[in-house]
Amino acid sequence: MAFFPTSLENLIDKFASLPGVGKKSAQRLAFHMLSLSNQEAEAFADAITYAKHSVRFCRVCQNFTEDEICGICASDRRDHSVICVVSEPRDVLSIERGHEYNGTYHVLHGALSPMLHIGPEDIKIKELLTRVAEGDVEEVIMATNPDTEGEATALYLSRLLKPFHIKVSRLAYGIPVGSNLEFADDATLNRALEGRTEM
Amino acid sequence: MAFFPTSLENLIDKFASLPGVGKKSAQRLAFHMLSLSNQEAEAFADAITYAKHSVRFCRVCQNFTEDEICGICASDRRDHSVICVVSEPRDVLSIERGHEYNGTYHVLHGALSPMLHIGPEDIKIKELLTRVAEGDVEEVIMATNPDTEGEATALYLSRLLKPFHIKVSRLAYGIPVGSNLEFADDATLNRALEGRTEM
Repeated sequence: MAFFPTSLENLIDKFASLPGVGKKSAQRLAFHMLSLSNQEAEAFADAITYAKHSVRFCRVCQNFTEDEICGICASDRRDHSVICVVSEPRDVLSIERGHEYNGTYHVLHGALSPMLHIGPEDIKIKELLTRVAEGDVEEVIMATNPDTEGEATALYLSRLLKPFHIKVSRLAYGIPVGSNLEFADDATLNRALEGRTEM
Repeated sequence: MAFFPTSLENLIDKFASLPGVGKKSAQRLAFHMLSLSNQEAEAFADAITYAKHSVRFCRVCQNFTEDEICGICASDRRDHSVICVVSEPRDVLSIERGHEYNGTYHVLHGALSPMLHIGPEDIKIKELLTRVAEGDVEEVIMATNPDTEGEATALYLSRLLKPFHIKVSRLAYGIPVGSNLEFADDATLNRALEGRTEM
C-alpha cells in the first residue's frame, strides 16, 4: 500500500530523479509544490516547458540561447579570433564574471570520459573543428576543468588542432588542481587566463 | 548582461525558490531539465500540474488524497475510535512503516509557532475538534514532533480536548528529544507508540 496518492508519489519520483536530490528531499520539494497556489505551481510547470521549448544551442558556440546565435557570438565588440573552450555553459558565466576575457567561447557540453563512456562524438568537438576550419581563428584557449577528464579533453583537442597551425593554449594552473571551474573565484580565474601556456 | 537566456534564468529562479535549493543547485537542476528529452521535461511539468490539481485534503483526517476520503479513513479494518495527531503527511508514513498502529490519523499541516506567526487558525485544529465532537472517538494520541512547537501544540490540543472526557495520550519519549519524527527508525517509533503516556 502506498501512503501518498499516486499523483503525489509520481511527483516525488520526478524530483528524486534530479541530480543530487534524495528521496527525503524529493518529498519536501513535492510537498512544497502542493503548498503553492495553483497559479504558482502552474508558473513552475510552465517555466520548465517554456525553457525546454525556447532554449537551444547557439549555432556557433553551442552555448544556451533563445536565438539562432547567442549574444556573445553575435557581438562585434568581441574578438572572434579567439575561442575559449569550456565543458559547460556555467563555465562561460564563471569566465565572464572576471570581466577580462573578450574573445568568444565554445561549449563542449561535457568532457571525454572512458569511465562514463563519453567519447569524442558525444560532445561538441565536430562543431569546434568546423569553426577553426573556417579560417579566422588565431587562438584556441582550453578552459576545460583541471581534472582528469578535462585534461584529457584538452590534450585530445590540442592534437586535433595541430594541423591547423594556430595557437592552442591552456588556462594556467592558477586554478586549484582537482577542483571545479565553477567554484573558482574571479581573481584566480583572471590569473589563470593571464598565465595561460602554449600546448 | 545576463549570460543565460531569459527563460533559462526564469527556470533557475523557480528552482532556487524551492526550500533548501541554493543558486548553484538551482542551476544544476535547470541544466539537467534542459538535458532531458522534450517528452521527459513535459512529463515533469505535467507531474506538477497533475499533482497540484488532483491532490487534496481528506475530508476527515486532512491527509493528502486524490479522493474525498483517504484510504485509511475509508478502511473498515482500521480502528476509528483512535486518532493519532501528526504535524505533517510524512509523519503518517513514518508511523505506518512501523506496522503496529491500527487507528486513524489527523494531519495538522504544521505546528503552533509564535515565532513563525502560526496560530491555532493556521493549522487543522478545528477539523480535529469536529471529529471528536461527533462522538465515537475514545483516544487521541499526540504524535507531534518532540520539539518546542510540537510540544506546545500537543499541550494546547490536550487542553482543548479536556471537556470531551476522552483519553488524550502522548508518544513516549522513545523518540530522541529535539529531533524530527521523520528521521526516527521503526523500532524507536514502535517503542514510543507502546509507551505512550496519558496527558
